[in-house]
Amino acid sequence: MSKIIIGIDPSLTKTGVGLIRVDDRCVISFVGARTIYTNSGDFMAKRVLDLHSQLGEIIDDFRPDIAAIEEVFVNKNSLSSFKLVYGRGALMLSLAIKNLPVYEYSATNIKKSVTGVGRADKNQVMQMIRYLLPKADFKTEDEADALAVAICHINSFAGD
Amino acid sequence: MSKIIIGIDPSLTKTGVGLIRVDDRCVISFVGARTIYTNSGDFMAKRVLDLHSQLGEIIDDFRPDIAAIEEVFVNKNSLSSFKLVYGRGALMLSLAIKNLPVYEYSATNIKKSVTGVGRADKNQVMQMIRYLLPKADFKTEDEADALAVAICHINSFAGD
Repeated sequence: MSKIIIGIDPSLTKTGVGLIRVDDRCVISFVGARTIYTNSGDFMAKRVLDLHSQLGEIIDDFRPDIAAIEEVFVNKNSLSSFKLVYGRGALMLSLAIKNLPVYEYSATNIKKSVTGVGRADKNQVMQMIRYLLPKADFKTEDEADALAVAICHINSFAGD
Repeated sequence: MSKIIIGIDPSLTKTGVGLIRVDDRCVISFVGARTIYTNSGDFMAKRVLDLHSQLGEIIDDFRPDIAAIEEVFVNKNSLSSFKLVYGRGALMLSLAIKNLPVYEYSATNIKKSVTGVGRADKNQVMQMIRYLLPKADFKTEDEADALAVAICHINSFAGD
């Protein structure tokens, strides 16, 4: 039975979402990609509700079976890091409300999983996504990163 | 018409919740206080869902009109700071899903609002809560802090 994985590159302002299908033989294919934007001028309550409702629409559209998301913690002490973590908290709740099993992966593992290199840059990730998912129709780096998160989940299980 | 304010001292592990009523003459009274615990051994998805469902039960029990919560950002770079912010993101979404207007206040403003001093310690806050809300039945520092957040909201509007 094939499964759909929703990968998420979380943020407060601009969240990448990438969906892939994996079949019985572990062959992967592209399902969809979206970017969720929230307005930095809005109150936090409005922004997290925007994240939640847009992610909810994507989940209703594609009916994924499993979610994969970048891990919570970042090692820079900056306003943008805190906003990132804040957005992640809201996105994690949004996924949990939809009863999706949620797996977390570190940024290093995600990059390594698609490029072989833990410190790969965004361009290398995009090139590998194009190679691994030739029919992928993604518009932003964030969507490519989100597809990488989904692939990382499959690789984490397929090798076992 | 009287209104009920729900104040929240947000965290991932131990969130204080305090509810007060304010009447037409700006007289405040104690309504309730609770602490929401999540298990640090659980996956993040489970923990944020626990926060959400317990906060939802409190909102259904007390039917508050307005929510007040400590502001998002902290100035320490530590794992516990990130967990705090992560919990806040989830709690903010939980409040927004319940269609509550959410107001944010800095820790300094909250302390100043109840004690007159922005750097007041937890004991000073608890003493002032006992003085301002003599019938308050709170069990933890976190519940006292949450009542302080609710009072801060009222003071922010009553003075205008």
